[in-house]
Amino acid sequence: MTSIAETPQPPYYAAIFTSVRASEDDSAYAQAAEAMFRLATHQKGFLGMESARGNNGMGISVSYWQSAEAIAIWKIQADHMAAQRLGREKWYGAYTLRIARVEREVSWAR
Amino acid sequence: MTSIAETPQPPYYAAIFTSVRASEDDSAYAQAAEAMFRLATHQKGFLGMESARGNNGMGISVSYWQSAEAIAIWKIQADHMAAQRLGREKWYGAYTLRIARVEREVSWAR
Repeated sequence: MTSIAETPQPPYYAAIFTSVRASEDDSAYAQAAEAMFRLATHQKGFLGMESARGNNGMGISVSYWQSAEAIAIWKIQADHMAAQRLGREKWYGAYTLRIARVEREVSWAR
Repeated sequence: MTSIAETPQPPYYAAIFTSVRASEDDSAYAQAAEAMFRLATHQKGFLGMESARGNNGMGISVSYWQSAEAIAIWKIQADHMAAQRLGREKWYGAYTLRIARVEREVSWAR
């Protein structure tokens, strides 16, 4: 969850989730985030995920998927919908989700 | 740079830059990142940018652009190319850049 995802040759899809936390980090949020990551890895079409959250409460999570359909199915998965509801009730002050088709990818490592 | 970008109705493009730092944060890196952000805002087709870096050195920056062509021109901008070279020489252990076409966007705020 905290390293660069190894994704296949494009094209594939990305769900870019940018959020601002409403409250300070708590263990319930961290547990839910970890549970959602584990659950996502078992979804059909899941390719990988990357997450970063700075000290200012701004967070970006990008998950990668084989298709837009796979993202749509993940969006309405029951446990995931419950977590989304909790996110709006408790954890997030604001968020934006963007669905994008990855066309090119370049990687570099030392 | 540290808030959710206000982007227009899709379609538009995203450059998703995921990186792992090679060394601890230093002022030179922070200055270069800030200078590149300011420079990007003056590029043709720039729509916005979001960045987050966690305490573990994992960082995600997503910049938004009107077109893939605008990203290609930004990629070879002279000062930006110099910063990319410094990134490989000094700052990054690894990175992946993905170019993606944003097809849908949903925003929520408390």
